[in-house]
Amino acid sequence: MAKAQRICALLFRLIAFGATLAAAIVMATSHETGSLFGLSVEAKYTDTPSFKYFVIVNSIVTVYGFLVLFLPPQSLLWRLVVAMDVVFTMLLTSSISAALAIAQVGKNGNSHAGWFPTCGRVPKFCDQVTGALVAGFIAVIIYAILLLYAINNFLNPLLVQKT
Amino acid sequence: MAKAQRICALLFRLIAFGATLAAAIVMATSHETGSLFGLSVEAKYTDTPSFKYFVIVNSIVTVYGFLVLFLPPQSLLWRLVVAMDVVFTMLLTSSISAALAIAQVGKNGNSHAGWFPTCGRVPKFCDQVTGALVAGFIAVIIYAILLLYAINNFLNPLLVQKT
Repeated sequence: MAKAQRICALLFRLIAFGATLAAAIVMATSHETGSLFGLSVEAKYTDTPSFKYFVIVNSIVTVYGFLVLFLPPQSLLWRLVVAMDVVFTMLLTSSISAALAIAQVGKNGNSHAGWFPTCGRVPKFCDQVTGALVAGFIAVIIYAILLLYAINNFLNPLLVQKT
Repeated sequence: MAKAQRICALLFRLIAFGATLAAAIVMATSHETGSLFGLSVEAKYTDTPSFKYFVIVNSIVTVYGFLVLFLPPQSLLWRLVVAMDVVFTMLLTSSISAALAIAQVGKNGNSHAGWFPTCGRVPKFCDQVTGALVAGFIAVIIYAILLLYAINNFLNPLLVQKT
């Protein structure tokens, strides 16, 4: 039972590692040259601070996720991992929310502020950003599940009778 | 010792409650009518989805923070509070990041996307948004500290010898 749980948790961490890696790579390689009124417009992730933050955070969490994969099951460091998970889940949440907020303006614009949508002229760039956001979202959901699972294991908040 | 810790934690929760309440109210009352090329421009938080999300999340966390203040110290629900803290801290983080990303564009614009800064024409609105963000930031820091403190208490991740 404990072994099955451990394998399941490891599998989750493997998926989360893949998701943050994919999110960082897809966002970092997003790049397109479109045209606006005959002028050439170049869109890349470094134009937007939120997207840069997204790439940096996802890269850091990828490295962390990779290292945790090699932690032996009996290691006492697993207790520290729970605290680290809190910090990295918060960082991931923050980076995805910031990128999502900007992506939403890019897609729909904001008529009150006079910001026009940009996705019309660089559709491929927008698709890639969407893909990166989906991957990041999967990662944050998995980290949140792992965190709540760890808290459930250690604290038993719902006071379930253990057999 | 345990009593001092409890009072300290309660004080932290009281500050966090005040901070989320302030953040929600300051953001919700932000409103200014400026002018652009002679046209009257109205800025309010409902124009921006991220700011609406910020107000909703901070209101929810305010209610939660208020209820937790009345939880008796011996209650077994405190274990559930740790799990709830994870969820609400993530929500707070997400709302502040999204609002901050938009506020940054409002302040500096994004020349690559053709989005002009809007703070010049509605400076009072911008100041109020900044104030709300600062209050929200204080709240999220406190919730993160409470969360890491709870994990430290239950899991003792740094393996400090307890006396």
